Amino acid sequence: MTRTVGQVRADVEEASRWLAGRVVRTPVLRSPVIDGLAGARVLLKAENLQHGGSYKMRGALRAVGRLAAAGHTGVIAQSTGNHAVAVALAAGQHGLAATVVLPVDAASTKVDRARAAGARVVFAGTSVEERVAVANGLSDESGHPVVDAYDHPDVIAGQGTASLELIEDAERVGTPLDVLVVPVGGGGGVAGACLAAAGSGIEVYGVEPVGCDSLARSLAAGVRVPVAPAPTIADGLRPSCVGELPFAIVRDTLRGVVRVDDDEIAAAFRLILTELKVLAEPSGAAGLAGALRLPPDGDRQRTVGVVLTGGNVEAALVARLMAPRSADLAAEGAAA
Amino acid sequence: MTRTVGQVRADVEEASRWLAGRVVRTPVLRSPVIDGLAGARVLLKAENLQHGGSYKMRGALRAVGRLAAAGHTGVIAQSTGNHAVAVALAAGQHGLAATVVLPVDAASTKVDRARAAGARVVFAGTSVEERVAVANGLSDESGHPVVDAYDHPDVIAGQGTASLELIEDAERVGTPLDVLVVPVGGGGGVAGACLAAAGSGIEVYGVEPVGCDSLARSLAAGVRVPVAPAPTIADGLRPSCVGELPFAIVRDTLRGVVRVDDDEIAAAFRLILTELKVLAEPSGAAGLAGALRLPPDGDRQRTVGVVLTGGNVEAALVARLMAPRSADLAAEGAAA
Repeated sequence: MTRTVGQVRADVEEASRWLAGRVVRTPVLRSPVIDGLAGARVLLKAENLQHGGSYKMRGALRAVGRLAAAGHTGVIAQSTGNHAVAVALAAGQHGLAATVVLPVDAASTKVDRARAAGARVVFAGTSVEERVAVANGLSDESGHPVVDAYDHPDVIAGQGTASLELIEDAERVGTPLDVLVVPVGGGGGVAGACLAAAGSGIEVYGVEPVGCDSLARSLAAGVRVPVAPAPTIADGLRPSCVGELPFAIVRDTLRGVVRVDDDEIAAAFRLILTELKVLAEPSGAAGLAGALRLPPDGDRQRTVGVVLTGGNVEAALVARLMAPRSADLAAEGAAA
Repeated sequence: MTRTVGQVRADVEEASRWLAGRVVRTPVLRSPVIDGLAGARVLLKAENLQHGGSYKMRGALRAVGRLAAAGHTGVIAQSTGNHAVAVALAAGQHGLAATVVLPVDAASTKVDRARAAGARVVFAGTSVEERVAVANGLSDESGHPVVDAYDHPDVIAGQGTASLELIEDAERVGTPLDVLVVPVGGGGGVAGACLAAAGSGIEVYGVEPVGCDSLARSLAAGVRVPVAPAPTIADGLRPSCVGELPFAIVRDTLRGVVRVDDDEIAAAFRLILTELKVLAEPSGAAGLAGALRLPPDGDRQRTVGVVLTGGNVEAALVARLMAPRSADLAAEGAAA
């Protein structure tokens, strides 16, 4: 997996041109209530309205598309959910066979979506190490390449196109971004954001759940530092370690990392649903939670872009987060 | 309130030009799961992402804008929620004083939104008759005109612009509408849809909750027939009688009315949230519930447009509808 950091903004621009017409150009949403809470103009890129319900579709389509063009007939992916589903959908569009490795406790909706897209679903333990081992074994047997969820240049460039569109759209309407905020799991999205913002002067921040802060610790240490991920409702942000390639991209360009707890994520989830009228998964809502924690820049009203990364969430969790006692539950989750 | 039916498609087209840049050109959403359930291509116009969270903003802006241009300095509106909030917001944008008359049991979020927009809120009973009497009294005192929620040509034309945009966008992407489905309260939206679809060959259907079917009964009788509205979770669709002007417009052009129960509305609400990732109020979800009840047209796959009219819904109701036992609750509601 060792690679030089050869990636540049042009890779994201090229991915964006290739993806035009293949992905939804998702809308940018705003709410005066959210602006007031943030003390800033907040522009949210609604990637929950993307094909497959998540911006993971961008990286998966770009990576699978290039593998198809190179003559591959099948692909393998592992994740806790969105990436595997996205690869399944992308493979279906390109006529490639897909095998996706999911944890045994995967959300049933994600299993159903992968199968509906025509993928073979293989279950493997509950840890990323178990899934990676099974995915690599399947790759060795079949000769089909593994599309990693974040340690892959095409995935990073593809994820970065969401940030690039947000940067472009903010400029177009006369409110260019000062800040760009992206939730961090393995780091593919935030690495893509750093590439998209390169040379623009936009400050890019990552957001990690408290106790799932591999990137923050890695930046402080100067080398990648794994963590034992703490429980969080943002299940997409729980990899034990930031990816090698994402870390190499962001280590010198990221402005900082904001840590948020489950209470803040739940509050952001509710704001997004009641004010913007769209459904975010908690991992997606974490970006807004982080934006609401940014320190103000004196009296200047900044423009803050947030990538609302996805909206695949179980009905029961929606009910729990919207119930009158949800603030207490979220606080319990944070304390767990 | 007696008026000749002088309204034509050009009124909607003119309103659409005037509203361009003043309202959000909301996206059209699709889901393969919904297409499968409907046996049709279903295109949903996401007016829950409109300013104010509802397509009522279109009619309110158009009507208030014309009153402002005519020199009025204030306006009065009454409704159970969305229309009054929309008039408050529109008046604020045009620098007019707004007084809105709400029922004493109005949702607190709607009261808060009207006040946040700078409107004076007056509470009056729980029936439309009580609110109309108070609104007319305030109008006599102040000289400010009442902007009716549906019995008003500018409101109808404004609401119709949502249908017009949907018709245009469906054509642009190569899937022109065969059918257009709009939920019916007082009938302003469905009247606007009939105007927007005039001459196009598109079949327009209205959707009413079971027991709130004043339009269906009126069409059968040939004259307006009031009902004692039954309980329904679609609280925006409970006027006791379809408006005079809307009825005059739709009586000869509407293809039909579909009646839906609370169970169907709740199922549509969940589909919209989990598949499209957006929040519909039950009155908005009723449109999809109706589209799912349309009889098939032989083996032909039709394209069905649905105006998802709004997304202003209380958190507790979202929790109830998404809870695991919500199907039972919805069934209870329908049986009530």
